[in-house]
Amino acid sequence: MRFEITATDPHSRARAGKLYTAHGVLETPVFIPSASLATVRGCAPQEVAQAGVQIIACNAYHLWLRPGVEVIAKAGGVHRFMGWKRPMLSDSGGFQVLSLAAAREVSEEGVRFRSHLDGSQRTLTPETCMAIQNALGADIAMILDECCPYPCDHEYTARSLGLTLDWARRCKAAHTNPHQHLFGIVQGGVHLDLRRHSAEETVRIGFAGYAIGGLSVGEPREQMLEVLEAVLPLLPADRPRYVMGVGTPDDIAACARLGVDVFDCVLPTRNARHGSLFTQQGVVKIKHAGLREDLGPIEAGCDCPACQGYSRAYLRHLWLAKETLATRLLTLHNLRYYERFMSDLRAAIAGEEGGADD
Amino acid sequence: MRFEITATDPHSRARAGKLYTAHGVLETPVFIPSASLATVRGCAPQEVAQAGVQIIACNAYHLWLRPGVEVIAKAGGVHRFMGWKRPMLSDSGGFQVLSLAAAREVSEEGVRFRSHLDGSQRTLTPETCMAIQNALGADIAMILDECCPYPCDHEYTARSLGLTLDWARRCKAAHTNPHQHLFGIVQGGVHLDLRRHSAEETVRIGFAGYAIGGLSVGEPREQMLEVLEAVLPLLPADRPRYVMGVGTPDDIAACARLGVDVFDCVLPTRNARHGSLFTQQGVVKIKHAGLREDLGPIEAGCDCPACQGYSRAYLRHLWLAKETLATRLLTLHNLRYYERFMSDLRAAIAGEEGGADD
Repeated sequence: MRFEITATDPHSRARAGKLYTAHGVLETPVFIPSASLATVRGCAPQEVAQAGVQIIACNAYHLWLRPGVEVIAKAGGVHRFMGWKRPMLSDSGGFQVLSLAAAREVSEEGVRFRSHLDGSQRTLTPETCMAIQNALGADIAMILDECCPYPCDHEYTARSLGLTLDWARRCKAAHTNPHQHLFGIVQGGVHLDLRRHSAEETVRIGFAGYAIGGLSVGEPREQMLEVLEAVLPLLPADRPRYVMGVGTPDDIAACARLGVDVFDCVLPTRNARHGSLFTQQGVVKIKHAGLREDLGPIEAGCDCPACQGYSRAYLRHLWLAKETLATRLLTLHNLRYYERFMSDLRAAIAGEEGGADD
Repeated sequence: MRFEITATDPHSRARAGKLYTAHGVLETPVFIPSASLATVRGCAPQEVAQAGVQIIACNAYHLWLRPGVEVIAKAGGVHRFMGWKRPMLSDSGGFQVLSLAAAREVSEEGVRFRSHLDGSQRTLTPETCMAIQNALGADIAMILDECCPYPCDHEYTARSLGLTLDWARRCKAAHTNPHQHLFGIVQGGVHLDLRRHSAEETVRIGFAGYAIGGLSVGEPREQMLEVLEAVLPLLPADRPRYVMGVGTPDDIAACARLGVDVFDCVLPTRNARHGSLFTQQGVVKIKHAGLREDLGPIEAGCDCPACQGYSRAYLRHLWLAKETLATRLLTLHNLRYYERFMSDLRAAIAGEEGGADD
């Protein structure tokens, strides 16, 4: 796998780079919006690309259950199934099995569970997980891991970590697609000794990139940064580093300063669906009564379709009427906001003028 | 008002024409999709125009209650509020008051009712109805009428008709916007004597165009056509004739053969939201299990965004996952189907080759 560091920040450990994938080159630091079900909710793929999104994240668990991997395989993979031409990462589904599925039993073999959709009995093993992500045609695949809740005691976390390391080895052995990068995942909760052990062992197995999972699950922000401070120096500098599930623009900036290259989070899309918009002037709640006759855009100067074509008053009207055009437009605004933020972050690392745009 | 008949069908009373409005010329027979709340549900205005839609129908009742006429007036009318550049018709809201509002009392003055949204007390009179539609900036406004349910006895219908005729006179008197066409509405249920009386009196008052209301409310199709056969010859041939709430492509074709120029119906948009798609090969239900791995488009040869970009299998997946991208795409397909149907109808009347396109 080709990953080039193109710039480093003299004031922090931040770096900018290029991550090469089968569907194109990612400019890092990069943010990955959610497309768990092979759709960025409410948005057409061209609109998502237009917002500047470089890569989306699908979910192996969700797509395995519905529409079924065989449907997507027949279509030629997620890219062709949904009409997305840029890179795609698939999450292994480990997190979703543990948060959504019923009657789950974690064993050495893998996770037995019942589908949250139809109750059908399934077993997700490292091997099936690799087969699913291969069929999805992901440019970046993730190992199957067990993501511990927060808080989680040392004993449970240590046992869980042993399982994750075993699964990591089996995932690597089962991974045969040369066009797909496989990323390992560092676990260990907030226990720094376990995190260090996990990082060392995961690096020993050897992956194209390294994710740090199990963060942003309820722990204090300081503890998240403490874990990253402990783990990041143990990961090879010439490989991409990915903090899963992070986060707010502030958290992304803080993690980038520690040397993180890749981020994903539901925040821009989920907040949009809840009517909450990111702007340079702070959060705008679209339902706010003060916007009733506000004929200005969500954010002055924003080039997203919502800000270019519609007033706050109209978007508020659509929102109150539960019209789905509202969630589409609000999502596109938040995605554009995030992309501009990431673009500015990359420019700042490269020492370029701020405000540079995609 | 300028209305030109450009072609007549030698085999029926069908005619094709051009109806001039402040926002452009309508090619008739024309179909008007619903945009009751100043949005064609789920679709952006550019997409609706792209589908070939010439004119949309907003609803005075709905927009009066939410977001409020003053909001839309401040924005400069519905066109600027929602970003729609083509003609717009506003329905008076008489039908919605009677079907949605609570605690309604119909009197000579107008209709007193409680809003179905917040319970607030309102009174819709012919004069307020004209003021609302003026503020909305409709190219075509409709008089306030009482739309009788089906069945409805002769006595009630006759009394109701008297009220509608009185309101028609007051609407005409209150209508002062020279850039807006005001259409009268013929009522009278399925009672042919009342329908004839209504037509004669409405024509005597004199409007830019004539609608026939209170049809497609549950009566047998034969009775609908019988009413039209009785009423249409009484309407001036040089004015547009509009059958409200019709309908299926078959009903539209039948009415056009009787000389109807304008149609509106919730069918293409509502059916799409229920997963039901119009195609030349019949109705396609998108949830059908047989489409699970169907990689073909909804309809071969269709140039809508759904058929051009996505498979039945993907649309079915989005539909089952309740993703709003599905309803958007299905709506755009049905709108495009209707526009192609209307375009073919106009071409057939003009004696041109069928299959002509917008």
